[in-house]
Amino acid sequence: MQIGLDRSGGAPPLPLQIAEALGHRIASGLLAPGALLPSIRNLARELGVSQVTAGKAYAELEREGWIERRHGIGCYVKQAAPGKERSGYAWQERLNDCLPRAQLWRNFDDREMRYPLHLAAIHESLLPLRELGGSVAKLVTGQPELMSAYGNFQGDYELRATMARHLRQRGIAAEPERVLVTSGAQQGIDLVARTFVGPGDVVYLEDPSYTGAIDLWAGRGARMAFVPTDRDGMRVDMLLRMCDERPPKLIYTVPTYQNPSGVTLGERRRRALLEVAQAYGALILEDDPFSDLYFGSPPPPPIKSLDTDGHVLYLKSFSKMLAPGFRLAALAADGDVLTRLIAAKSASDLGSPLLTQRALLPFIAGRYDAYAAGLRAALRRRMEKAARILSEIAPPGVGWTAPEGGLCLWLSLPRPLDTAALAADAAAAGVSFLPGSVCRTDEARSRHIRICYSILSEADTERALRLLLPLLARHLARA
Amino acid sequence: MQIGLDRSGGAPPLPLQIAEALGHRIASGLLAPGALLPSIRNLARELGVSQVTAGKAYAELEREGWIERRHGIGCYVKQAAPGKERSGYAWQERLNDCLPRAQLWRNFDDREMRYPLHLAAIHESLLPLRELGGSVAKLVTGQPELMSAYGNFQGDYELRATMARHLRQRGIAAEPERVLVTSGAQQGIDLVARTFVGPGDVVYLEDPSYTGAIDLWAGRGARMAFVPTDRDGMRVDMLLRMCDERPPKLIYTVPTYQNPSGVTLGERRRRALLEVAQAYGALILEDDPFSDLYFGSPPPPPIKSLDTDGHVLYLKSFSKMLAPGFRLAALAADGDVLTRLIAAKSASDLGSPLLTQRALLPFIAGRYDAYAAGLRAALRRRMEKAARILSEIAPPGVGWTAPEGGLCLWLSLPRPLDTAALAADAAAAGVSFLPGSVCRTDEARSRHIRICYSILSEADTERALRLLLPLLARHLARA
Repeated sequence: MQIGLDRSGGAPPLPLQIAEALGHRIASGLLAPGALLPSIRNLARELGVSQVTAGKAYAELEREGWIERRHGIGCYVKQAAPGKERSGYAWQERLNDCLPRAQLWRNFDDREMRYPLHLAAIHESLLPLRELGGSVAKLVTGQPELMSAYGNFQGDYELRATMARHLRQRGIAAEPERVLVTSGAQQGIDLVARTFVGPGDVVYLEDPSYTGAIDLWAGRGARMAFVPTDRDGMRVDMLLRMCDERPPKLIYTVPTYQNPSGVTLGERRRRALLEVAQAYGALILEDDPFSDLYFGSPPPPPIKSLDTDGHVLYLKSFSKMLAPGFRLAALAADGDVLTRLIAAKSASDLGSPLLTQRALLPFIAGRYDAYAAGLRAALRRRMEKAARILSEIAPPGVGWTAPEGGLCLWLSLPRPLDTAALAADAAAAGVSFLPGSVCRTDEARSRHIRICYSILSEADTERALRLLLPLLARHLARA
Repeated sequence: MQIGLDRSGGAPPLPLQIAEALGHRIASGLLAPGALLPSIRNLARELGVSQVTAGKAYAELEREGWIERRHGIGCYVKQAAPGKERSGYAWQERLNDCLPRAQLWRNFDDREMRYPLHLAAIHESLLPLRELGGSVAKLVTGQPELMSAYGNFQGDYELRATMARHLRQRGIAAEPERVLVTSGAQQGIDLVARTFVGPGDVVYLEDPSYTGAIDLWAGRGARMAFVPTDRDGMRVDMLLRMCDERPPKLIYTVPTYQNPSGVTLGERRRRALLEVAQAYGALILEDDPFSDLYFGSPPPPPIKSLDTDGHVLYLKSFSKMLAPGFRLAALAADGDVLTRLIAAKSASDLGSPLLTQRALLPFIAGRYDAYAAGLRAALRRRMEKAARILSEIAPPGVGWTAPEGGLCLWLSLPRPLDTAALAADAAAAGVSFLPGSVCRTDEARSRHIRICYSILSEADTERALRLLLPLLARHLARA
């Protein structure tokens, strides 16, 4: 059981920290129902805390319903993710791992859901699959050696040149030498985490934030600090005050059509955020999957476009908008932080496959802008239709703001819900959503759920909402 | 500067540990020439050691020629990897990272080498690229949705079923539910490292070992212990004695046609190795890229085939033998260690691309065995030809054993060489090789180099050897 404890001044009491860490493992399905937890004595010894502290942690977990105590035997895991199997090998239950949280895996893995509204993705009918398929087919015939080559760890040079051109059109002074190709934005976040975030490093992020990033910061033993957001995005004034107490190593932000809340960081705040990073010698990871998907006027320029001294690591997924199965993103960075990220990428997987890199290239170089314009119109129509359905049948008190871009609606509920119970009922009806509780680290109940309006056909989106919303109403009535 | 120090009984003196860690960073090119190192006072404070210890570490680095002291100013990096650029941003030089070693990146990245004998890979003329390309082309037309889907994080079910069948034919009781698809074996090693290896965990590995794995254990802060090998592979008797002092968390082995030495672990030792893991509650990572590439009789059955209680994580690259650019391997594991690895894979990259997974499937299910037989014959011919050329022109005292399988020859030299200097001369002639020094953690000079006889056409392999061997002779004469 490896749990990083924060013993600094303003940190929560140790029993709560321990209970929270164990609760994450149980909630993620990493500790299976029926698993025996370490004795209080052993837990205390392993974590270097008193037995009183360890006992209080178990009491808290029991209070929250995660574990049960059997007198004279010990504490067992009670609740857990359904469908996750027990080890079967007793020795493996004693095997320490470095995986404190796995909500991405828990919530996003393929669940054969008829209506997977939990995903933030685009329905295949809107994607340029025929063109991309044509590229692939041409390459396997004309350049079969692309299938045999490892290629450059940093990514294919021509693709990097194309990506750099694309970023320059968006105000970022990128060069092919300053771009790293990653296997999707998820790997980009992972590379930054594994390279620059170690135990105790302070990572700031928006409240709420992307659960797949939270998993990665947790896995590195970071101290996460969530910064409140309002309609203008992260409250940089509050961030600045928080940094006074705990200087940042890294600030993670999705500044445009934020995941999951949908808000956009205003231009003035973008400058202020960069100043915070400069003042503290910190990095900003700017995760920007959605900025080409605006519905009205374009969003403010990327934070990276303001960066003059290498504080911003800019991450843009290309596969998200073109073909998620290609798993390709660009990470632009200046200075030797990029060198270190390339070394980390090498050790991770020896580089992304060359074939898909080359297949994506002509589209980015050519038809991307025209395609994006059409996609924006189609997504806007879907968003508006979903909003109309919500207006029509959402339970009273449920709120949302029509997003200015992106793929998702962030619904706020009139009172906190056990979103896990709602998710189970919805799953039985074939519908999924993202529970707000997994977009922070400290919530079992949440006042938010995220739904995606672009993953299904318009008709299916409507069907899914007409299944989900009555269930939501029932759970709200009961709460 | 994050350096994990081992303060236990048998560990090397702290100044040497610090010097070794800094030396790795410089040798990998992660600290650029001209970079200013922390003052002795600051280094001591950061690492929690005395200033005397920090001073001794710098003296050792100076003695080894890595750094130079400028009186009244401080210590600067002197030597470093050529071609790696300085940051340009002073604040970034003070930015801690978690990347202690990057020899994989340093030695294997695309260097536009005419004769890249450093790679362990197969020339494209021997690979089934036409068939695989045909599969790809058919899929992009017939099932374009494969390009848009994220797929299952664990890997495509049908591919896993095919891989499991393949493994069962080799004595491993695999099921599709017990296989994880990874982006090449490199990612498989990385997933095991990030999930199960934390600071201070003891990892045993063969001496010499695969440099890309060493980088990953180092990155996790592991204590690495190298076990001597002989012609029968790892000396498990010595491992057992070493474990007495430092119990293992994980044992990493390439048991068949070991990388880089080419030796194969005998059957009795395979059983004994498993018993060590059982006795200590440890994991074995069995990395097995080459066992289908035998030249005489097949190698002993995999260690995994003997495993009854989930100690062995079995890793088999498929892309290595079929199409390296596909980046696909199978990781078979039992018990909930697999669950944890799947969760780690999810957070790493949301799963490997579905298109290449499906494209590889028919070949593994169908023509694999016939293909492997032909490939064995072709590789054997190349190995024998390379050995003949060596017999003819290798400098006196250079030795090798004709390998019983695999892709590489491991040459032993009559005396230790500065292989980096040899590599620089060879690179100027367009030839590369793998210096033995990077297959351990403590060697600047080495008595070994590894060359691959399968990466080039037969004619080019001959040309490369005829360029390299005279250079080797010259360096040996000078040494």
